[in-house]
Amino acid sequence: MSVPLLLDTVWVLLAAILVIFMQVGFALLEAGSAHLKHAGHIACKQLISFAVASLFFWAFGYAVTFGAGNDWFGTSGWFLALPDDKGKIPLEVLYLFQLSFAAVSLAIAWGGFAERAKLIVYLLFGALYTSIVYPVVGHWIWGGGWLSKLGAQDFAGSTVVHLQGGIAALIATLLLKPRIGKYGPDGKPKTMQGHNPVFITVGAMIIWLGWFGFNAGSTLGTKDGFFGYVALTTNLAAAAGVLSAWLAVYTMNKKAEIPSIANGALAALVAITAACAFVEPWAAVVIGAVAGAMSVWTAAVLERMGVDDPIGAFSVHGLAGVWGTLSTGFFAAPHLVEYTGIGRPGLFYGGGWTQLGVQALSVLVAAVYVAVVSWAIMWVMDKLFGLRISQEEEIKGLDWSEHGIEPEVVTQDAPTAGKPAAALRASAAGEAI
Amino acid sequence: MSVPLLLDTVWVLLAAILVIFMQVGFALLEAGSAHLKHAGHIACKQLISFAVASLFFWAFGYAVTFGAGNDWFGTSGWFLALPDDKGKIPLEVLYLFQLSFAAVSLAIAWGGFAERAKLIVYLLFGALYTSIVYPVVGHWIWGGGWLSKLGAQDFAGSTVVHLQGGIAALIATLLLKPRIGKYGPDGKPKTMQGHNPVFITVGAMIIWLGWFGFNAGSTLGTKDGFFGYVALTTNLAAAAGVLSAWLAVYTMNKKAEIPSIANGALAALVAITAACAFVEPWAAVVIGAVAGAMSVWTAAVLERMGVDDPIGAFSVHGLAGVWGTLSTGFFAAPHLVEYTGIGRPGLFYGGGWTQLGVQALSVLVAAVYVAVVSWAIMWVMDKLFGLRISQEEEIKGLDWSEHGIEPEVVTQDAPTAGKPAAALRASAAGEAI
Amino acid sequence: MSVPLLLDTVWVLLAAILVIFMQVGFALLEAGSAHLKHAGHIACKQLISFAVASLFFWAFGYAVTFGAGNDWFGTSGWFLALPDDKGKIPLEVLYLFQLSFAAVSLAIAWGGFAERAKLIVYLLFGALYTSIVYPVVGHWIWGGGWLSKLGAQDFAGSTVVHLQGGIAALIATLLLKPRIGKYGPDGKPKTMQGHNPVFITVGAMIIWLGWFGFNAGSTLGTKDGFFGYVALTTNLAAAAGVLSAWLAVYTMNKKAEIPSIANGALAALVAITAACAFVEPWAAVVIGAVAGAMSVWTAAVLERMGVDDPIGAFSVHGLAGVWGTLSTGFFAAPHLVEYTGIGRPGLFYGGGWTQLGVQALSVLVAAVYVAVVSWAIMWVMDKLFGLRISQEEEIKGLDWSEHGIEPEVVTQDAPTAGKPAAALRASAAGEAI
Repeated sequence: MSVPLLLDTVWVLLAAILVIFMQVGFALLEAGSAHLKHAGHIACKQLISFAVASLFFWAFGYAVTFGAGNDWFGTSGWFLALPDDKGKIPLEVLYLFQLSFAAVSLAIAWGGFAERAKLIVYLLFGALYTSIVYPVVGHWIWGGGWLSKLGAQDFAGSTVVHLQGGIAALIATLLLKPRIGKYGPDGKPKTMQGHNPVFITVGAMIIWLGWFGFNAGSTLGTKDGFFGYVALTTNLAAAAGVLSAWLAVYTMNKKAEIPSIANGALAALVAITAACAFVEPWAAVVIGAVAGAMSVWTAAVLERMGVDDPIGAFSVHGLAGVWGTLSTGFFAAPHLVEYTGIGRPGLFYGGGWTQLGVQALSVLVAAVYVAVVSWAIMWVMDKLFGLRISQEEEIKGLDWSEHGIEPEVVTQDAPTAGKPAAALRASAAGEAI
Repeated sequence: MSVPLLLDTVWVLLAAILVIFMQVGFALLEAGSAHLKHAGHIACKQLISFAVASLFFWAFGYAVTFGAGNDWFGTSGWFLALPDDKGKIPLEVLYLFQLSFAAVSLAIAWGGFAERAKLIVYLLFGALYTSIVYPVVGHWIWGGGWLSKLGAQDFAGSTVVHLQGGIAALIATLLLKPRIGKYGPDGKPKTMQGHNPVFITVGAMIIWLGWFGFNAGSTLGTKDGFFGYVALTTNLAAAAGVLSAWLAVYTMNKKAEIPSIANGALAALVAITAACAFVEPWAAVVIGAVAGAMSVWTAAVLERMGVDDPIGAFSVHGLAGVWGTLSTGFFAAPHLVEYTGIGRPGLFYGGGWTQLGVQALSVLVAAVYVAVVSWAIMWVMDKLFGLRISQEEEIKGLDWSEHGIEPEVVTQDAPTAGKPAAALRASAAGEAI
Repeated sequence: MSVPLLLDTVWVLLAAILVIFMQVGFALLEAGSAHLKHAGHIACKQLISFAVASLFFWAFGYAVTFGAGNDWFGTSGWFLALPDDKGKIPLEVLYLFQLSFAAVSLAIAWGGFAERAKLIVYLLFGALYTSIVYPVVGHWIWGGGWLSKLGAQDFAGSTVVHLQGGIAALIATLLLKPRIGKYGPDGKPKTMQGHNPVFITVGAMIIWLGWFGFNAGSTLGTKDGFFGYVALTTNLAAAAGVLSAWLAVYTMNKKAEIPSIANGALAALVAITAACAFVEPWAAVVIGAVAGAMSVWTAAVLERMGVDDPIGAFSVHGLAGVWGTLSTGFFAAPHLVEYTGIGRPGLFYGGGWTQLGVQALSVLVAAVYVAVVSWAIMWVMDKLFGLRISQEEEIKGLDWSEHGIEPEVVTQDAPTAGKPAAALRASAAGEAI
């Protein structure tokens, strides 16, 4: 292999490792957003789902996405049995990079299942999702399928990865119904705060970090140092998303709610994922800022509509994925479109409505496909053995019901547990005043 | 330096950094597996032990492992005073990479000491372990010593790193005796669950991530992109280990116990460490699956036999290290053996019993050496000042006894500490029903 | 772009990502060092401050630091509008690398604000700090300004990054006054232990890891593999700092206090930051060991003097930054000075007093500049709307006051909260004895 190709290979493998690191971020973000009684379960199913994705995307998913086939799906390359192209990045590295994306999409889908699905659901749905759901849309846009022939712009997967995951999460949350205690008898939602805001924030920071691999790695090489440009737009969008989400949630609730700010960063990252290679830095800031605020507002509306999406997966990944995919229809800059060679410039650069139409079509067909297939899979599972845990299990916690953790251990050594907090506070204050 | 060599150097340094990141994983995994009252101590001794390893492996360990000498140990290169070979990766980077391995081996050994050893033990044993224990076996297999001349296959250290650490952990756990409360008066073991399953899982995920540096970095370069192949087999094995351990522990206890699943991933990674460059993907899946289930079963047997190994270090690293080292004797594929140029094909590929014999010999002599020397060091320390903390210290916790942490601080601000959990649960349920 | 330049670009971007990872470390270190009631807030303001730094250093800070201008500050290149030099690392990557440093400096400054500043302060001070405070000293030393013309040696920013951050933290802690309960009526300090020693330690480990990017990345390229040498001196210093801080705090308090040991590692890293490219490995050990012990002693003295610096930012980053900057005046080795082409050899190598004088001047003017400007900014903010939260807010916690977290959620599912710990302990002990 030539030295430039070896360098590209190192870069793509390191990008894959960064994206796999996002699994740690998702585990922390979701566990922190949950009740303590479910937190171990949530982290554990993240580990399990990466394992499931690794095996099934190796056996089937990669072939369906990238194998030779037709406009609709690949039909060859099971177990990576593909011809080795000596002039390209080795297949093993491409697989690991693409696996990391499939696993992120699956992690997003899990958000909708949180705190009330049986553990076995994660195994079965994960196997099918990474074998035949995610890969089909992947083939349409990235594998030479019909949408790629129309010039759909989705640089790193706002649609392929995030919108798909977000829609699957929405279907799950609708089928599973709200958590116990989420809605009062009057139908009004109650805030169920996560047990660990440090986990939430650190999780979001790690996901942000991993996104450098996600977007800048999607150059699939180091040519012209273009990956640096992609890293820049990605980071600016995320920063703008933090501040706009903060402003939005503060305006609404007079508090800088941590889950909203963390989700603002992620929504911005989701949105810039399609656009990162097509837009200028100022546009990245706009795209990120819109996504951040939008994620706060849409989450509030959905909650009021009775959709109990515990970590806001549909708002953050689904709706911001839509916005991000559409955004290139507005903001794609001519010189960047020319450089990447995909699609046309956006409306604001005189490119007309064409690209926007293609983007809208991508969103629509991807959303319909994943919604229908996910719903079918989950409906069958629900009929066969039930998706949801029992009421007793939900109240006592998944850590107990699925994993056999005796609840005491989490605090068994906390020596002041019996001392009323009020007294502690009073004495702390008293010492000082 | 030539560009290909610079690229190799970047790759190996980044791999070293990934492996050093595993220290964070070990700190979380082990702290999460411990009682809360010992958790700070466990994280802190991880920090200390990496510092100790850094200094002693620099002063002595690297020279004993890789310095010129005889078949048994190196005798030159103290403080890295080795001739600089301009055509190779710079010595500083090789040192950092090898240090990261020595530090992992030491971290494994610590597992056996957990929750009952004095802090000073970590300083003294760590200094000796990274100076004269680990490096000797390292020299035999990787430093041009007698086992390497026999063609022993241990690509990234199932024997050198993991088996050694696992045996040292076993010796420690035997000398230290079980933790207070581990065995009832009838001699039956009691489950002592870790206080934080999120730490356990996230720790395992970070260790998995670091393993891409561990195995794929052990190519010591980027030639032919072979590091990508190694990363593939590594990841497949780990994934298989998660699922097989889940199945094994579920079959046994009807619960998806989180420590077992996390350890299943690690045991599979340990096993594939020797084999990652020699076996085909399907064999990696088999090796990982066997290791994952085996770690569950062996840990249960050892526990019943009275061996209180708090995080299963001997099962996960010792026994899976044996299995991994032997596995190439079965599964080493001819074209990969030819490519790496080490040893012979395995039994299943018609290579006969020779390689299996060499592998078994490696395991045996490494285990005996590390067992005898570790036992001698610990026995002397025990006689001189005692390895184990007092009963009062163990009950109040190492965070208090060694580090001066007042137990209240961990929960001092938890305002509902005085409110019975039953009431909280009832109200939570009540709202919903 | 040429292949060597692409490789340099990959290395610098990866180094930037490692340094950005330090934000996770700071969030954990500082949250763990705080009371539980402020922990979410502390993590969240870390996320916010990285967002603020990303935008303001992009709009203004990079131009002031590196734009063409005069000896005092840059006056061009707003929003990265700088001529693209085809023969150099792309501007986007240089920006991300330099941003990661500015954000670390800001994170250090935040230490002084911990547990008592309003959230809005972080937005406003962060915007100004990364636009006009940090960049000015950056321009003097790294941007071709007057100190660089004098030959000031500050390889990776002991002065530019750490001393500046440490001084800003000191000003903040003096203006904000001590936390409630820190000093008794007799003026004697009380120990306020952090709520989570695992977070403290893991945070320090992650910061250490990120420092490989910080120092070794400051080579801004891969030429001659010199980044490996820098990584070596960096790691040795940190290791020595851990052990010397442990010894220092144990001598003083008879306990291996975890925050002191973690800070010892960091102080050593701060000190070696200026020196890493100029000194030999033995000197790195000395510099790190002095910094580690010094950070313990100076923190104790400052605490007794009435300076309530919750995480020791001024000791760890300010004073160790001074020591590190001065250290090259003693230890800079002739062959390394020649290689880097900056300044002169140190006193101990017969270089005379000149370099030491230049280093002292750098420290002095940087400290005065940042002290005066930070003080002015904070004084104005204090007059306009007050820096500090109310007494009630401080007692109930910033998580509640700024972020709307109901305190119950953190422990709401802990089922044994009502069971006296004494009973738990007794039963645990009873089982065993």
